[in-house]
This record gives sequence, structure tokens and C-alpha cells, in this order.
Amino acid sequence: MWKSSVKPVPAAEIPEFAHEADVIVAGYGCAGAAAALDAHAAGAHVVLLERLSGGGGSAALSGGEIYLGGGTPIQEACGFADTPEDMEQFLLAALGPDADAAKVRAYSRGSREHYDWLVGHGVPFKPSLWDSPTWVPPTDDGLMWMGEAAHPFADAATPAPRGHRVTSDGFGGKVLMQVLSEAVAKAGIPVHTDTGAQQLIVDEAGRVVGLLARNYGKDIAYKARRGVVLTTGGFADNAAMVATHAPVLAGLPVNSDGGDDGRGIAMAQAAGAAVRNMAAGQVGISLVPAMAIRGMVVNDHGQRFINEDVYPGLIGQAALFKHGLKVWVVLDEEAYEEVPEIERWGVRPHFVAETVAELEAELGMPDGALQSSVAEYNRHAEQGADPYFHKAERWLRPLRAPFAAIDVRRGIAPPEYGETSGGGAEVFTLGGLVTTIDGAVLDHDGDAVPGLYAAGRATSSMHARGYISGTSLGDGTYFGRRAGAAAAQS
Amino acid sequence: MWKSSVKPVPAAEIPEFAHEADVIVAGYGCAGAAAALDAHAAGAHVVLLERLSGGGGSAALSGGEIYLGGGTPIQEACGFADTPEDMEQFLLAALGPDADAAKVRAYSRGSREHYDWLVGHGVPFKPSLWDSPTWVPPTDDGLMWMGEAAHPFADAATPAPRGHRVTSDGFGGKVLMQVLSEAVAKAGIPVHTDTGAQQLIVDEAGRVVGLLARNYGKDIAYKARRGVVLTTGGFADNAAMVATHAPVLAGLPVNSDGGDDGRGIAMAQAAGAAVRNMAAGQVGISLVPAMAIRGMVVNDHGQRFINEDVYPGLIGQAALFKHGLKVWVVLDEEAYEEVPEIERWGVRPHFVAETVAELEAELGMPDGALQSSVAEYNRHAEQGADPYFHKAERWLRPLRAPFAAIDVRRGIAPPEYGETSGGGAEVFTLGGLVTTIDGAVLDHDGDAVPGLYAAGRATSSMHARGYISGTSLGDGTYFGRRAGAAAAQS
Repeated sequence: MWKSSVKPVPAAEIPEFAHEADVIVAGYGCAGAAAALDAHAAGAHVVLLERLSGGGGSAALSGGEIYLGGGTPIQEACGFADTPEDMEQFLLAALGPDADAAKVRAYSRGSREHYDWLVGHGVPFKPSLWDSPTWVPPTDDGLMWMGEAAHPFADAATPAPRGHRVTSDGFGGKVLMQVLSEAVAKAGIPVHTDTGAQQLIVDEAGRVVGLLARNYGKDIAYKARRGVVLTTGGFADNAAMVATHAPVLAGLPVNSDGGDDGRGIAMAQAAGAAVRNMAAGQVGISLVPAMAIRGMVVNDHGQRFINEDVYPGLIGQAALFKHGLKVWVVLDEEAYEEVPEIERWGVRPHFVAETVAELEAELGMPDGALQSSVAEYNRHAEQGADPYFHKAERWLRPLRAPFAAIDVRRGIAPPEYGETSGGGAEVFTLGGLVTTIDGAVLDHDGDAVPGLYAAGRATSSMHARGYISGTSLGDGTYFGRRAGAAAAQS
Repeated sequence: MWKSSVKPVPAAEIPEFAHEADVIVAGYGCAGAAAALDAHAAGAHVVLLERLSGGGGSAALSGGEIYLGGGTPIQEACGFADTPEDMEQFLLAALGPDADAAKVRAYSRGSREHYDWLVGHGVPFKPSLWDSPTWVPPTDDGLMWMGEAAHPFADAATPAPRGHRVTSDGFGGKVLMQVLSEAVAKAGIPVHTDTGAQQLIVDEAGRVVGLLARNYGKDIAYKARRGVVLTTGGFADNAAMVATHAPVLAGLPVNSDGGDDGRGIAMAQAAGAAVRNMAAGQVGISLVPAMAIRGMVVNDHGQRFINEDVYPGLIGQAALFKHGLKVWVVLDEEAYEEVPEIERWGVRPHFVAETVAELEAELGMPDGALQSSVAEYNRHAEQGADPYFHKAERWLRPLRAPFAAIDVRRGIAPPEYGETSGGGAEVFTLGGLVTTIDGAVLDHDGDAVPGLYAAGRATSSMHARGYISGTSLGDGTYFGRRAGAAAAQS
């Protein structure tokens, strides 16, 4: 399981602490940076630990969307009115039943201020809208839709685009982390790299008073006078933990920096912390949203199962959790040609045929399966309707020969990946430690584990089963800040 | 969350132990009875605790099927050859990817001996086969199929019926527990009823040395010289735990004695134990298998999603986890009439229509949804084929007017329930403590928590995501025995 124990070490067994600070933050991704910055801003002496040789974490590799709203300057500049209440209602619906209502409320109401905090630290957003479905805009546009206008979410809240994309030529996560790293440096916060948290240190009363970290094979004891903040990421890179808690994600490529081994979660659990929602995952399905939305997404029985205009991560979750990722994008030549070259991400049809019957046979589907689905889709699309899944009329049109199909399991090649991602999806875990809105880690009684805080994907945060891009960078930075500030003041 | 803490109590804080034994077993269902009996048989002085005023647990309310095979006398008398290897392969496939291979192997290879143990204690099985799909035979037949001959399981292992049903007029669980209770009484094992385990007691080294139990509001300390065995059941009755770990099951009626509050699991977690597979659940869907198998099970888009001849619990899991239980049984008059009165469990069609189009409209499905599905089903059934889901030819026949549909969410009324179960399904949880094949509870390092054992639904046992009836009474008694014996010898 683990090469070395994750169990907490009694403080009495620590001969000498090598370092001491008010707040020790473990993990230098976006949550760790935000925690360190706001702990520092609250007057605490902070040390920030990172297992790898530099900060950035999975955040630095991400697309750079931050889910923000409630009327940000970017939204206003693009002509959209928004309210914290609409944002809250959308997130409650989109993050799934049983989303953490208190966190969603805090996050939605704090979003305007959090925008200012990000911009204040130098995070750039361009006030222009990218108005086509995508994972990441191929331009440097700063605002994008995240399926807010799609069924059933348009009924839950007045739609507004809330995907705030950090300005970048390509994925924006690296820019976000560069800016936050500069802020950390400017604040004079010491960063100890190549230093991975191994075990918590607890006193006799069960309070977390530090942690043991590993630096080039050597154990180093850190004392935390006020609190330890775990921002160590999820557990998607830990095959054993995935098999144990989130078996549907097993074996798929992981969207991370390779270090999401769940050790922070396990260290906290071994010290009494409770977890939540461990089976949930984000599913970055390997389809090009602009193609899917113009056609049909079908399973291996030729059945549609979702409106293709939702946020593609929700297509991914349905495809993986309900259909084992055995899904295809079916479209016609006209739809394919309609997608601008820049939005195709190198994806070309894997199957083409003059009739649906031929395409169906090529895909190995039962005789009649795809034919009856396309017939139904076309019959209704002619009327501008999708009574099955309620895709918006804008995207409805009968599909006509020649037909094409794309096997999502063959992957896509977005610009930053360089080559096909393979496997049909890249996933990461959404479950983790149970925390309060101020990052206090809770135990099985619902009490705070004294001295222990967490944020980011090490926690279950706002999410239940659903996921919308921008909520990881968003909740990581927002709740990271709150956890850092709370630890500083404890 | 909990009215009183689940955290372990240091032994030093216990002024006086009211009772002492070699082995304390908490929870008097089938796993607790088996653990107590084999701990006693191994020479240990045992005390068996039960929170309610009498033993029985959820087992006593169950249908009474025990999944056994490998060539039992009942199988042989009914003319079926079987091997432990076929049983093992079937269980690995049917309990889902990532079933606990070591436990499945031990269980399959130990099955013949376990049959003898059960019969030796007086558990009755009648050597006759009930050869129609059902949840529980309406007769006292002792052997039944559990979908072993259905796709894809028939390819994984040579099919043999392995559902061994305790002889009873109706549900057999009460007979099983009556027999085991008589054995417990005969062995002279003290049973303390109205005594619910509240917290584990641990010594300074972290060894579990007893437990604190509540008897009419009074805390009573039990000392366990060798070990504590938790057989306290799952957590399906604990709404907060279900929402936290198995949100898909939330709000559904529970198949239990009402006491599956997960406290045993949480007590152990608070003492350092790890859990597994917490999102999984058995789904006793409210459909009559003999009707479903003769027709189609469809979702709210009229789509079939499984071969209707699998074990109905697997239909239930697919219906709930993939289609939100919005499913109907669609059949025709001929199919309905073919089901003997005794197998109908009081269920009558909720919708009848002369055409599929009318039925579809009555069900509120999109125009064409059910019509295209029935057309496809019938077209292939005429050829004796089901290329979509591979239902066996025996059950394939084109459906003809008049048509009928049954809304599974309206429930069924099996004889023992008295009235409709409502809600579409009765569920229980499959996740729980991580244990070895000998019941040792493991911590986050994969080490045994010294002195702590568990069995039954308090553990994740053999299961991953799948479920077959008879594996709860089966693994509860089999691994209960092993846990009791191991505790006695520790």
C-alpha cells in the first residue's frame, strides 16, 4: 500500500524540529499558494512545502479556467448580468445532488471579491467572450460558457457565462501559477521544494502540531504553531486508492502532475479525519465539444443518453459512469466541415459511410441500433425539437449522408498535450477530506481535528457527483485562502 | 452526526469493566451468530451483544438465500454438477470488477464445508429446484438460479444454480436465524440484548481491548481479552452516511431491520480502520422477475439497457445507478397471463394500451421512443435473437397487442412485506471495513488494527459493485466464522 506509514507520529517521539512556523502548508498547487498567501496576509509566518522540485501542481497543467460570477467586470464587459444567486443555483444543480450547499453559497457570494483578489495578485483575464463550445478557447478570450444555457440548467438559474479563462496562448494554468508564485515570492514566503509530507505529528491531546516530510530520503520534522494546511491534491495517481474508492476511474489516464497520490488524504484519515464522496471523478472525455454538439453522442447500442450541449465534462461523467466510455460521436460531413480547423484539435472521423446502416455495421453495433436512433433524431430535428434530451434548437439539424463517427476511446490531441491522450478520457478524483467552509478538517464525530486544515482536491470541497471546469482552480484558490487565513488565526 | 462520540476511549479512562470475555461480538445477525459459534468452538469464552431486544438482525428479515456451490448435496440431488472454480469465476464476474479475489476464492473453495457447517447446525435445505426467475421461490424449493445462465456470466463459468434457500413457507431468513440462535443458546454463549456498541476501548499501544456499550442509557464497559468482532451491519439506515458515501442510494427504502446505522463502521474508522467501496449498494428493484424476463425493461427514453434474464438485483443496480430508477417493465397480455398467479406478487399492469404509441404517450415518453424500441425488440425476437443485450432465446418472443407497462416506482407486494414496498427499490449498502479473509480489520497502512475483527455488511467483504442474493447471508456466516475463530486464537 504505502512504502512508509501514513499514521500520525506522537510529538513526544520527535527529538528535534528542523523548522518551525505558524502555518505549514503542504503542497504548492493553486490551493497551497492561496493558503500560504492568505495565511501570510493574516500575519502568520508560513512555510510552504512541495514534494516536487518546483511549485505548480496539477493547476499549472490545467486549462486555466476559473469558475467566477455574480457580476464580475469581465462578465459586465461582455454584456452579461449575473448574480451570486444564479451562480449558486447553477452550481447546486451542476455539481450534482448533495453538493456542499454551505460551500457553494460561500463560493458564489464570495466570487466577486475572489475575482478582485486574483486580479489584485496579477492574474490576467481578457474581457472577451469565446462563444463556441470547447474545453479551452483556442484564442486568448477570457470568458466562456460552461453549459449554463443547456437543459436542465437553464431552468435552474438565469444563464450567464462564468468560465473565466486566465489569459494565455494555450492552456492558462501555467500563467495562473506563475502569477501566484510571484506573489508568494514577493511575500517572502519560504518554499521548501523536494519536500513531501509523509506523516502528521500530533500531541497527546490529538492536536496536529506539525508534520514529518521527506527530503531526498531524509525525514525532516516541521513544527506548526497554529496549523497545518494540506493542499496535497487528490488520489487519481494512486491505483490502489482508486480501485478501493473510485473503481470506475481505474485504469484511465489521469489529468494531474503525476503526484496526486492521495497521501495527504490518507495521512489525515489515519489521524482521524473523515472523507466524503470518494467514488466521484471528473471525466475529461476525449471528444471535441464543437463536433459533439453538432451531432449525436451514442453508446455501443446506438443510444443517445444526454443533450450534447451540456458542459462536456458532464457528457464524460455520463459516458464513463453509465456507459463504460463505449461511446461515439456520430455526425455528418456538413457538421464536421462547419467546425473551424482551429477547433478540431486534430480529430478526424474514424469511420465514414454513405448510409447509417453501413456506419452502424462498421461500429459493430446491433443491426438497427444506430439506424433507429438517427431516424428518431432526424425526425425530431426537422421540427427543431429534441424531446429526448432537450438539446437547444440552435444545434439541431437532421444529419445527412455522408455520415461519420469518431471513437472517443482513440483520444484527441489538444494543442498542449502534443499527442493523443488515449484511453477515451483523462480523469481526476473529486472525493476527499470533509472540511468546513474555513478549511477545518472534520473527524467521524463531525468535530474539527485540532490544528488541521485542508483545501483543493485533497478535500471533497463543493462537489458531489457533478463537475464543471473552473471549480478546481476556483475552489482551490478560494477555499485555500480561507483555510490559510483560518489556520493563521487559530 | 452522531449523538455521542464514536471515537475510541483509552483503556486508562475506564474505571471498571462490567464484563470480560475472550471475544466480544457486537451485533447478533447471521455474521455475529456465526462468529460467536466458531469463537466458542475454538475454545473462547464469548459474549454476544445486540442493540435490539433480540437477535436476528437484517438476516432474519431476508429471503433466506445462501449462495453456495462447488457441488453441494442439494445441487447434486437436483442433477447439477458444480465446481468451486466455476463458482469462483461466476462470483468474480457477478460481484463486479475489483471483487475481493482472495475472499471470493476462499468462499468458493470453502463452500462445501460451509454447507456442512450450516446443515450440521440444523439449517434445512430441500433438494428441489425452483426453475423460474424470482426473488424468492413462492414454494419451499431449496435451490434456485441466480442468473448464472444469463449473458455474460454463462461465458465466464459453467452455469449451475447456487441459490440455496433455507426451507420456509415464505422468506427463509427467520428460519436461518432461529436455527443459529438455538445453536448459540445450546453452546451456552451469553447474549446481552438491548446493548448497543458505542465506542471501542483501546490501550496505549493502540490495541482494541474492549468496547463501551449502551444499555438503557447506561454505559457498560466490556473487556475483550483476545478480540472484538464487529458484526454490526451496514449503514443504509444512516441518511447522513448514505449521503456522504453512497448518495445514489439516498432517500430509498432500506432493506434492513432498521438498525443498519453504520456505527460499527464509524467506530472502527475512528480507531484507524480503512474502508472500501462505500458507494456500492444492493438494489432490490420493485419488479417481478417473471414478468420482466418475458418483456422489456426500459428507461424513460424507452431504451432497454440490460438483458432481462440476469439476476434481478443486477437489473436494479443498472436501473438505479444508470437510469435513476425511472424504469418500466413493458410486456404484453400474453406474457402477463403466462406468469402464474403465485409469482405475480399482487402486481398488475399500471398502464394498458392497444398500441405501443398509446402506451408510450401514457408513460410520458418522447414520441417514437418506445415505438422504435419495441419495433427493434420484436424484429429481432422474431429471429430468436437479442443482438442488443443477449437475453436467452427461451425468453424471446415479439410483443403483441394489447400492451402493458408496470411502473417499478409503484412498488410490489411480496408476501412477507404485507404491502407495497414503494419507492421503486429497497437498498442496502455494500461498502465497509477492509478486512483480511480471517476478518482482521486493516488500517490505512494495510496493517491489522490489533484486536479488531469484523464480518458481514459492516465490511466490504467479497463485493465490489455487483451483488447476487445469498452473498450476504453467505459471506456473513462464512467470514463471520473465520473472524470469530481468528479472534479466539489471537
